[in-house]
Amino acid sequence: MKDSPGVFDLLGVLAYAELSAFARMTDDAAALAPSLADRAALSELAVAEYEHFRLLRDQLAELGADPERAMAPFVEPLDAWHAQTAPSDWLQALVKAYVGEGIAFDFYREAAKRLDPSIAKLVDVVSADEGRSQFAVERVRAALKADPAASGRLALWARRLVGEALSQGQRVAAARPELARMLVEGADDQAEISRMFARLTEEHGKRMAALGL
Amino acid sequence: MKDSPGVFDLLGVLAYAELSAFARMTDDAAALAPSLADRAALSELAVAEYEHFRLLRDQLAELGADPERAMAPFVEPLDAWHAQTAPSDWLQALVKAYVGEGIAFDFYREAAKRLDPSIAKLVDVVSADEGRSQFAVERVRAALKADPAASGRLALWARRLVGEALSQGQRVAAARPELARMLVEGADDQAEISRMFARLTEEHGKRMAALGL
Repeated sequence: MKDSPGVFDLLGVLAYAELSAFARMTDDAAALAPSLADRAALSELAVAEYEHFRLLRDQLAELGADPERAMAPFVEPLDAWHAQTAPSDWLQALVKAYVGEGIAFDFYREAAKRLDPSIAKLVDVVSADEGRSQFAVERVRAALKADPAASGRLALWARRLVGEALSQGQRVAAARPELARMLVEGADDQAEISRMFARLTEEHGKRMAALGL
Repeated sequence: MKDSPGVFDLLGVLAYAELSAFARMTDDAAALAPSLADRAALSELAVAEYEHFRLLRDQLAELGADPERAMAPFVEPLDAWHAQTAPSDWLQALVKAYVGEGIAFDFYREAAKRLDPSIAKLVDVVSADEGRSQFAVERVRAALKADPAASGRLALWARRLVGEALSQGQRVAAARPELARMLVEGADDQAEISRMFARLTEEHGKRMAALGL
């Protein structure tokens, strides 16, 4: 299973997700941060994404895959997600960093359940960084405290982030059936799939609550 | 001397130089790299710049300075340098990464000669990373081998990078006399200043030769 095309796809999509998140967060930090300290805080998160990319790329190479080839099918859908969700201000950038990272972690966790232990371990390492985006939560909550009217607009933004992610996810699943099969058929039965979606929805709901949205 | 305004200025300009180089290289890597491997190679360099930024910012904080305030006077001139030297293709991006980093290292080295040992040590740590940009040299040389006609255009580009850096440097020196005084009057005499400029010119010439320009 370690070297099945589904595993290469999984590591490939995660690697490019980290590499593209790194570039976009860095750009958002430079373009939208209201202060150099804020810029550094979001850049710090971006650099952590790059470090994850490095781990995933090296794991691909170790399994004998060509990292570039493994990432290639996912460049277009992930770039499309970023293009459709370019934040227009600092709060949108923070919500995107937090929600985007949350979606990625959910995906990691679900994948880890169905993977070879050596890869599951890598996923653990990456997931251990989750606390890093906590600063985004604090800044958003503080901003909402100062301006409660902003919450409707930001809640809408968070829904758009998830909606666009689902729509790109469906495209990817259709184009990469082995990846989809590994993630979904790896689940024991229909009830487990339902539980998986319930978990994803629950986690997203928790993140929205954490943001005060 | 450790906490003189000149030292805060020096650490501030270096910190913002690293933070802005990080953002620009990341952006150039995402926008201009011809392959994901090239994109990763330049991103790797960008992340090293961020790590230098972190060291410099922490050193400022340790000396009791406000890092944001120390960086603030240099945001505009460094952003102007980047705006005036936005690469329009991958080779220009590589030459900029290599030449830009070279200019920064020369500046670090000259500064280190005139600084408190604790700060000189920090400068050593940062300078130890110089080898990282070697990949840029290899790619540029390979490209020039395949297309020797590109060398005139790239040599012109390298001169523009240095010219714009000198022009921003003059603005900074005029606006921050303490910084200029520390770097220049720290030198023993006029002969030493001449030697400093000779060293800078020599180092830049070496880099051009390394690139095959």
